[in-house]
Amino acid sequence: MENGPVEFWVADAEYRHGAVDLLGILAYGALAAFERLAEDARRAPTLADKVRVASMAATQVTHFERVRERLSELDAEVMAAMRPFHTAFNAYHDHTRPKDWLEGLVWTYVGNGFAADFYREVAAFVDADTRALVHEVLDDQGQAEFVVETVRAAIAADRKVAGRLALWGRRLVGEALSQAQRVAADRDALTSLLTGTVDRPGMDLAAISRMFTRLVENHSPRMARLGLQA
Amino acid sequence: MENGPVEFWVADAEYRHGAVDLLGILAYGALAAFERLAEDARRAPTLADKVRVASMAATQVTHFERVRERLSELDAEVMAAMRPFHTAFNAYHDHTRPKDWLEGLVWTYVGNGFAADFYREVAAFVDADTRALVHEVLDDQGQAEFVVETVRAAIAADRKVAGRLALWGRRLVGEALSQAQRVAADRDALTSLLTGTVDRPGMDLAAISRMFTRLVENHSPRMARLGLQA
Repeated sequence: MENGPVEFWVADAEYRHGAVDLLGILAYGALAAFERLAEDARRAPTLADKVRVASMAATQVTHFERVRERLSELDAEVMAAMRPFHTAFNAYHDHTRPKDWLEGLVWTYVGNGFAADFYREVAAFVDADTRALVHEVLDDQGQAEFVVETVRAAIAADRKVAGRLALWGRRLVGEALSQAQRVAADRDALTSLLTGTVDRPGMDLAAISRMFTRLVENHSPRMARLGLQA
Repeated sequence: MENGPVEFWVADAEYRHGAVDLLGILAYGALAAFERLAEDARRAPTLADKVRVASMAATQVTHFERVRERLSELDAEVMAAMRPFHTAFNAYHDHTRPKDWLEGLVWTYVGNGFAADFYREVAAFVDADTRALVHEVLDDQGQAEFVVETVRAAIAADRKVAGRLALWGRRLVGEALSQAQRVAADRDALTSLLTGTVDRPGMDLAAISRMFTRLVENHSPRMARLGLQA
């Protein structure tokens, strides 16, 4: 327990703004994922798939509720915390509408993977309670496994699927990076969270840029697990 | 604890079939409600409404999962238990597609209310563990309150809304009764659950008919709470 420094951080207004921004992204991301998964559940090819995806959607609501609680411990309101990120998330959604069930699954898998990597990177720079929550929310409870198996089976049944989904995966990462960079540019509080202060560890701007590079690098092994070229 | 008679019931094949039917309806009903609420969340007028309805949708998934567990304690599989009720539920959904957010809320409110009354009636005739689950699943956690407030506010803002929603409520009950009666006619196991046996309490057919009458009678006070004529 690093109780001393943690409380010092949370009392620091600049730190607090950054943490609230991070949690706001996490909350709006969970809602966005819920909406995507709810739509996927609607067009699931079997009732068993529908149940599986509905349960993934429900998990996102639980995440949202946990993040809302943490925000409230930080005296912040979830609706206000999410507001700065509507534009970026909505633009991402508008530019990446899955045309079918498989594209929806890849959307979830790539999006969750990208988000998970980003949160893990950022979590190193937040207080212990917020970090614990971030890790809890990121625990995907075998959901990735379900997507991997389903996509691999679809490719095995029809090789043409692989080319189309590989293109789709590239499009998703390009859009995600573009929106992430827009957010990084717009939100000084979030960037300050990452760069740190004299009293608080952080990354310099070159390190932030390397972080984005790592996010892109991690995309390839993820696509490979699906049986796709990145 | 009435452990003796309860275990006797569950060991009775006829009783068990009826209970599995009831749980199958409960499971498929929860999935159907999830799909309806997920669609409502998509078109919620505000982000706060979206969060509220998404959380209602997630609750339905939790209900589904609890019912699946109980079925598995009865050595039954949820997919098989739901199968006999696809037709009735799907027909109900096809015939009652809400045109907007308010119709969606009334759908949830009337449907949940009707279902809750039905389950409470039937719960008297099942074993204690199943009855406890039915009551747990029916606990609506203040969701009705949210619908009542939202619909009343919409009517206050525009009186014309009341006439349209009253008609809609009548349509919903008519469809629900028609599907419920189809299920009662098709599913001997469920009807046997209600009529009982020498060893197990039940209703005679006239009592079942009175139960349907009570279900319709309860619709009026429910609509009145919304500020609507039944």
